[in-house]
Amino acid sequence: MCELLGMSANTPTDICFSFTGLMQRGGRTGPHRDGWGIAFYEGAGVREFRDPYPSCDSEIANLVRNYPIKSDIVISHIRQANAGRVSLENTHPFTRELWGKNWTFAHNGQLKGIKKYKLSHYLPVGTTDSEHAFCWLMGTIRERFPKPPKRASTLQRFIHQQCHELRKLGVFNMLLTDSKYLYCYCTTKLSWITRKAPFDQACLKDAELTVDFDQLTTKTDIVTVIATEPLTTNEDWNRMQEGEMTVFRLGEKVYCHCESLPS
Amino acid sequence: MCELLGMSANTPTDICFSFTGLMQRGGRTGPHRDGWGIAFYEGAGVREFRDPYPSCDSEIANLVRNYPIKSDIVISHIRQANAGRVSLENTHPFTRELWGKNWTFAHNGQLKGIKKYKLSHYLPVGTTDSEHAFCWLMGTIRERFPKPPKRASTLQRFIHQQCHELRKLGVFNMLLTDSKYLYCYCTTKLSWITRKAPFDQACLKDAELTVDFDQLTTKTDIVTVIATEPLTTNEDWNRMQEGEMTVFRLGEKVYCHCESLPS
Repeated sequence: MCELLGMSANTPTDICFSFTGLMQRGGRTGPHRDGWGIAFYEGAGVREFRDPYPSCDSEIANLVRNYPIKSDIVISHIRQANAGRVSLENTHPFTRELWGKNWTFAHNGQLKGIKKYKLSHYLPVGTTDSEHAFCWLMGTIRERFPKPPKRASTLQRFIHQQCHELRKLGVFNMLLTDSKYLYCYCTTKLSWITRKAPFDQACLKDAELTVDFDQLTTKTDIVTVIATEPLTTNEDWNRMQEGEMTVFRLGEKVYCHCESLPS
Repeated sequence: MCELLGMSANTPTDICFSFTGLMQRGGRTGPHRDGWGIAFYEGAGVREFRDPYPSCDSEIANLVRNYPIKSDIVISHIRQANAGRVSLENTHPFTRELWGKNWTFAHNGQLKGIKKYKLSHYLPVGTTDSEHAFCWLMGTIRERFPKPPKRASTLQRFIHQQCHELRKLGVFNMLLTDSKYLYCYCTTKLSWITRKAPFDQACLKDAELTVDFDQLTTKTDIVTVIATEPLTTNEDWNRMQEGEMTVFRLGEKVYCHCESLPS
């Protein structure tokens, strides 16, 4: 299994605190030694850092932890390999362009038989089941919507439906973004928390670190953090249900449906 | 104008020395203050670093300079903006996937009227003429070759032809790679040097630094470095001609033609 971390915010925000917790799980408090990656969005642009080495020993992970890169959306992943060897091309997150937007995807779980799903526009570079699933998902979105649909909810429902399809093959906890919306789909483990005024302190579970968000934020900030397991010990995280998709925009929940699809 | 830097090697090699020279031009010995980026290939995988800030002051550029990331192919770019505002999405190099390979592109020059060129499969995320040209180039390759052609030379000739087409619009110095071949096209400025045994010392032009490659290499290493302007003072660089495309694989020249296309 792997660990996922995501963020959606209404103002450029750094993720140093949460990433510090996550990277400990990459070989220190957790077994995920097979690489890590992170994508930071600044508007339409994205910067990615990726390493096929354990995050707890990584020079690049240290930079990301210490250098406050402020962004609107973040997707991060630390890997414990199951399908696909340990290499840079098999390291999440994966990205593709659709409609002139950078889409980024990370996945936790295993999808048995996914490689039988036919691909069209997008082909995987590596050999993971995750990248195959991403290419299939992006290809079906592109086929169904050669141009972006007018209503965001049309696309959200379609993506939710496709996630249900993938879930039939196994475990599919996913983070996906098009640089504006952050799509979170859960089959087993995914939790989120929205922080806004009045801000409070938070204590990391995986490292001795407490942060007082009141000192670091303004009253209008809204920041949602999503993770495989809650990252802090003193806050109430929302645990997602099986089959649930929740979508965030500017830190706020804009779509949330469970098992059965909305009509 | 911008500065380009590329590398092709037959063994994973770091580019710290050349990058140290290049990054000085990003706001110190040169005027290119509008961002920089670098893509490192490890086999099929790629890692990229990108910053919309001057490379000479960048924390991330410092990491790249000091942390020896060994790779087979590198493409780097420092930017002095002309078309397209200074932002992450307008920062080279640009990447797209074709045939399950990561393609990376960086460009120096200006292409007047490029935005009239119709795009199909690939759309730009930012607003530069360079990314538009890249999307056009990739789209035409994909249309002409839905599957990769059997002979590498067929593709090389086609790309050369498309570069000639782009050159009609202005200045088009380009580095392009599909993770195996490094395509270099010149209209005004591009120079390269191949280093192999017996190795010697090299002195940087833009910083006080000399390196003795004999200490850092093995006898079988072959490393080619390509740059807008020669980076060292004591070596003989090959200056490319107008309309010339030279392609490198594993550090060695595998294609080189000038103005008129090979029949």
